[in-house]
Amino acid sequence: MAGPRKETLDRLRAAVGPGGFLDEAGALAPYLTEWRGRYQGATPLLLRPAAVAEVAEIVKICAETRTAIVPQGGNTGLVGGQTPYGNEILLSLERLRAIRGLDAENATITVEAGCVLSAAQDAATKEDLLLATSLASEGSATIGGIVSTNAGGTNVLRYGMTREQVLGLEVVLPSGEVWHGLSGLRKDNTGYDLKQLFIGAEGTLGVVTAATLKLAPRPRHTVTVLCGTASVANAIALLRLAQSAGPVSTFEFFARIGLEFVLKHVPGARDPFEAAYPWYVLVEFEGNDAHALAAAAEAVLEKAGADGLVEDAVLAQSEAQTRALRDLRERLSEVQRKEGGSIKHDISLPISAIPQFLDEATQAVEAACPGVRAVPFGHLGDGNVHFNLSQPLSADMDADKDAFLARWDEISRLVHDITMKYGGSISAEHGLGQMKRDEILRHKPAVEVEMMKGIKRMLDPLNIMNPGKVVTL
Amino acid sequence: MAGPRKETLDRLRAAVGPGGFLDEAGALAPYLTEWRGRYQGATPLLLRPAAVAEVAEIVKICAETRTAIVPQGGNTGLVGGQTPYGNEILLSLERLRAIRGLDAENATITVEAGCVLSAAQDAATKEDLLLATSLASEGSATIGGIVSTNAGGTNVLRYGMTREQVLGLEVVLPSGEVWHGLSGLRKDNTGYDLKQLFIGAEGTLGVVTAATLKLAPRPRHTVTVLCGTASVANAIALLRLAQSAGPVSTFEFFARIGLEFVLKHVPGARDPFEAAYPWYVLVEFEGNDAHALAAAAEAVLEKAGADGLVEDAVLAQSEAQTRALRDLRERLSEVQRKEGGSIKHDISLPISAIPQFLDEATQAVEAACPGVRAVPFGHLGDGNVHFNLSQPLSADMDADKDAFLARWDEISRLVHDITMKYGGSISAEHGLGQMKRDEILRHKPAVEVEMMKGIKRMLDPLNIMNPGKVVTL
Repeated sequence: MAGPRKETLDRLRAAVGPGGFLDEAGALAPYLTEWRGRYQGATPLLLRPAAVAEVAEIVKICAETRTAIVPQGGNTGLVGGQTPYGNEILLSLERLRAIRGLDAENATITVEAGCVLSAAQDAATKEDLLLATSLASEGSATIGGIVSTNAGGTNVLRYGMTREQVLGLEVVLPSGEVWHGLSGLRKDNTGYDLKQLFIGAEGTLGVVTAATLKLAPRPRHTVTVLCGTASVANAIALLRLAQSAGPVSTFEFFARIGLEFVLKHVPGARDPFEAAYPWYVLVEFEGNDAHALAAAAEAVLEKAGADGLVEDAVLAQSEAQTRALRDLRERLSEVQRKEGGSIKHDISLPISAIPQFLDEATQAVEAACPGVRAVPFGHLGDGNVHFNLSQPLSADMDADKDAFLARWDEISRLVHDITMKYGGSISAEHGLGQMKRDEILRHKPAVEVEMMKGIKRMLDPLNIMNPGKVVTL
Repeated sequence: MAGPRKETLDRLRAAVGPGGFLDEAGALAPYLTEWRGRYQGATPLLLRPAAVAEVAEIVKICAETRTAIVPQGGNTGLVGGQTPYGNEILLSLERLRAIRGLDAENATITVEAGCVLSAAQDAATKEDLLLATSLASEGSATIGGIVSTNAGGTNVLRYGMTREQVLGLEVVLPSGEVWHGLSGLRKDNTGYDLKQLFIGAEGTLGVVTAATLKLAPRPRHTVTVLCGTASVANAIALLRLAQSAGPVSTFEFFARIGLEFVLKHVPGARDPFEAAYPWYVLVEFEGNDAHALAAAAEAVLEKAGADGLVEDAVLAQSEAQTRALRDLRERLSEVQRKEGGSIKHDISLPISAIPQFLDEATQAVEAACPGVRAVPFGHLGDGNVHFNLSQPLSADMDADKDAFLARWDEISRLVHDITMKYGGSISAEHGLGQMKRDEILRHKPAVEVEMMKGIKRMLDPLNIMNPGKVVTL
């Protein structure tokens, strides 16, 4: 698709008026650079509509002139879905950020796409309710973005992905028509559930302009425990034991090497145990009765100790201890950067297959790249493993970094093939975007790819919505 | 579409072999009669394939010969979705009933479509896990049926609809191709979530042959409470209070008239309270610590009493008391039959709109039909109201019953219009089937109907899958 003509750009500028567009390189730069620097985009024009009617007008003009559109939220995506290749106009929803309503009795909130996730969370908190989706990037990520990518995050184990929070959507379709699909209903069996198409579609089927999301009762207390364990199989047995005792809200795991990275690079971090263990598990129980929660956690630890599932455990006794234990898990991404280049995998597996996967994948990458340091961690309760690989230790880490990263695709193929062998997914929560659009074709059955193309053709016959992302026609 | 030719029927019989079909009127009758007798179908041939390959072969023959197919599960649907008009072959999944696997570590079960829901529940129970979907008809309803209708039931408040239990599907598409979409993954963001299309599609987009469903930890204890309250608004405030105190698994409401019907018609039923109250609420808390649960329930009742939300309350102290309290709610449908004809509505609303809806809808039906007795009850926690209307008391109830029921469509229009005015749905959990296929067109935006038609055309271009149900082309 060729770039838009000058007349088209002029019409688009006129549709939003002054203040509604940016077209100078300096102003555009922050929208075009993915935050880790992995994707660098280009566009002739950024539009910042302030009303749904303006979004509809923009899409109509684009449909008429066959101009491609990339919708963008908080620009926090990790697979290049929000980054234009060059000929597309970029459509930022950042001025469409109203909280249209919060219905405390119905426990729902209706929010425009450009609203930052943390602002919507805060509005829920004020009513003593919880908007469950929670992410590291929640201070920048937007409602439109989390819906369009079906964001995961730290609350999935108890509350599900973003998909499970969405009750209704307002979407500007690729024709420019507005689908007024907002709804505060928890039950509605009146035909095909159309909103599901747009959730996780990464902007390839339309522009989400607002969403109605479920809110949950806000839990009053959390109990945080860190366990050292001999194996991931033991950690999985502990997960089932903990879940049968009480509401588990967090179940994260990481390997000893990850803890060592944190101890080495985070000032003040300390190992809560005297001995070293191969694996660690961070468990949190959530509820309203502090005593009952602590009793449940202690009973689980006692039984787990007796059954040999846990070697040692510490239960946080203060806010500061809770913070310190959580930090050991949360700083893992950050400290990996200090250990040189890393090749990352956001994969998921049936939980029961994770021990075998880890053995086989670790052996495979070590055989392919001697000295490579596998640093697996992730949301064990969701089956989501961040199988990250740090470059081998060497005399000149900086010099060897590029050579290591140059092998990304080759190494990823190894990891992805083993993932698929165990019935897994090569993108648990980040999506396909540009990054995995073609890689997925190696794994998805042809009939599934054809259905995806069929949906894309049906809703976006002109292929103007974020073309070249997710699926190509 | 004309009926199938003799050669086609012969090919279909050959595809399943002896024992795989029925074509005599007596044998067909149970598959053609909807259990309440509201729909009576007809078919030249019932097929009972015993393998997925046979289902695929049947669909291929049907696609080649333009023969329409009605897939059928346990024949427990309430909107005629499972009943053939006459020219379709009927496809029963009843011989495809294996439990293919239960992965306790992954907390998933993979079950074929014809497996009865209660058999799958039992398999989960054996592993101390819970298959959350639970329905009055669970002894007959099948996995294929609950997936294809996105069944609701009694556990929705805590666990969601059937949609939220489904992780993966195996589907024979209208082309006869098999989509192997079974998956035990809780996180998988690799493109459009295709399974969502088939969940709740009532067999109009393909034949679900197997599903992988999530299992939950099995809760150890339940506390059951019945409250008398002055208003539905008070009941809603009680819902939020209860949810902020502990995990509420059931929150059902019913009007005084419903209780009176039960007291009159159920031998041994008794009013647990000395005084009469306008509304009653059945609340259940679920958890693992019996003492903590009871304490939470008592604290809620104390606060609710102090705030004037509850007039009186009883907390079940034994299994027998629990059974007796639940019975007051569960017998409501049954006793209504003894009060003459009833016009029923399975609607949902934003919870906050229910009090106004009830006032307005009751006034409207009483104005249209003097003496009509509104008997509202339902899953208040899900916003799901069964707005059922019993015929007016008269000297000859039997004689007046038909005249009352003859007004079904007229009265339903009144109720549905008020439902839509408050942002509700005219089918909360039962689906569209034949019954509401046209009625929904009065309420659904045209753009939504067009998207539904687009999906139907894309997946079933020959319109052979359960034609004339849900959406017509």
